Amino acid sequence: MFASKCIGIVGLGLIGGSLGLDLQSLGFKVHGLVNRSTTAQKAQSRGLAQLISTDAKILSECDLIILALPLDQLLDPPKDLINALPESAVVTDVGSVKEPVLKVWSKLHKNFVASHPMAGAADAGVGSGRIDLFKKRPWVATPEANTNLEALETVHQLALVLGSNWITAQAKMHDQAVALISHLPVLISASLIRALGNEPDSSLFELAQLLASSGFADTTRVGGGNPNLGTAMMVNNTSAILRALHLYRLSLDQFEADIMNKDWKKLQSEFEETHALRREFLRD
Amino acid sequence: MFASKCIGIVGLGLIGGSLGLDLQSLGFKVHGLVNRSTTAQKAQSRGLAQLISTDAKILSECDLIILALPLDQLLDPPKDLINALPESAVVTDVGSVKEPVLKVWSKLHKNFVASHPMAGAADAGVGSGRIDLFKKRPWVATPEANTNLEALETVHQLALVLGSNWITAQAKMHDQAVALISHLPVLISASLIRALGNEPDSSLFELAQLLASSGFADTTRVGGGNPNLGTAMMVNNTSAILRALHLYRLSLDQFEADIMNKDWKKLQSEFEETHALRREFLRD
Repeated sequence: MFASKCIGIVGLGLIGGSLGLDLQSLGFKVHGLVNRSTTAQKAQSRGLAQLISTDAKILSECDLIILALPLDQLLDPPKDLINALPESAVVTDVGSVKEPVLKVWSKLHKNFVASHPMAGAADAGVGSGRIDLFKKRPWVATPEANTNLEALETVHQLALVLGSNWITAQAKMHDQAVALISHLPVLISASLIRALGNEPDSSLFELAQLLASSGFADTTRVGGGNPNLGTAMMVNNTSAILRALHLYRLSLDQFEADIMNKDWKKLQSEFEETHALRREFLRD
Repeated sequence: MFASKCIGIVGLGLIGGSLGLDLQSLGFKVHGLVNRSTTAQKAQSRGLAQLISTDAKILSECDLIILALPLDQLLDPPKDLINALPESAVVTDVGSVKEPVLKVWSKLHKNFVASHPMAGAADAGVGSGRIDLFKKRPWVATPEANTNLEALETVHQLALVLGSNWITAQAKMHDQAVALISHLPVLISASLIRALGNEPDSSLFELAQLLASSGFADTTRVGGGNPNLGTAMMVNNTSAILRALHLYRLSLDQFEADIMNKDWKKLQSEFEETHALRREFLRD
């Protein structure tokens, strides 16, 4: 296990809080920085870190600092946070897009390593952190040519002690991949919800509501999620999402053409392909 | 509880098998008709009915017969099945579209009642039947002007003893509603899977596969389901599905326009609406 005098976590929501619980149980000393004193109190009562404060000075002893902030705050970090990061510390983040993060942070700290633990859950906020959130989940780092290799190795060790599967990729590739498997699903799922909202016949809407079952619930889950998170995805990964949406529209067009042409044999074979592809893709 | 000398179930897959288990446990005498003798043996060993046969004569004593066949077989029923249905029996079905079923069956039996228990599961086949599948689930009947009201009341009582929520609707309305909440989700979910399949960059495909998580799994679940069922939906509910797809495309266009215009304020408020609408719609 790698050694650390003190690990600083900035933000104690789902990701930050879960990091705090896991790292303490592994024997690390954890300091947490939060925005509000009410959050600090709640985080304290849940034991998310040994020391919790709204003062960035709490990071001064730390040799590894994890920025577990929402994307908008991560991309527009407050001065006092930047100034409080010790020069010798390794700094990493958990943001779900990597090119915009690197654009900001590679200039702000020489030991910055862009990373993205792919551990999501429906919950958010100081009450949502849980143990073992990262176990067997991918942890992607997106190093650049000038990334400090020792710093990268520290983040690698962090991911390993948390039980994650370590992956490295180019930032651009990462952003295009999450556009396909995470951001595009939000968009098409939200579109399905709003298609219902656009239904002009109110008695049909009401009947649909009575009949909606688990299939509808599954398909609309991510589209009905946190609106701030959805917007942040679209704002910060725009071109990759538009690229993924283009691929999706081609695919939808193909299905619609089969239906319009009543080419049921083709449609059947395409449903067989999607059935097989999903199993292969998810190793289901 | 309504009285019945013998309830006949035609087909002992997920729906038929579950009906057999529930109805026997409620004290009814159940006869099951299946296509193949190997299926009859499996159904017998699972106790899905008291008497099981591949000979349609097994239905001769029954006063209520439930056609629990796949849609293609239901819409093209074999002669010996039609001939074996006692004239005085009440006959109902469990098909997921109702206009095409009524078109065929209202001519074939004077006591036919079109119905659709909305109880789905990923499983299919003779091994998938389970108790309490219909409990608290909608059971929709779509009576027409010439539907026998006593027969309708028998099916109503059947739904009640199984614990379902009884709903009646016009067949056309039912088919449009299921197009929105069940068939459209299959189409857009399958399109998402194929968008991945259409990804031209194989290393991007591989990275996406490593990163895919529960959100992707949820959104693609119904699109990766049974290909025969998906095709049967599209074949038999074509115009309602194209209508729903039109509503969906308008909704997707609106989101895409926001993203192209970088109108993040509008996008945020739309994600807030879909978040609220899903909760309201599913009473989540």
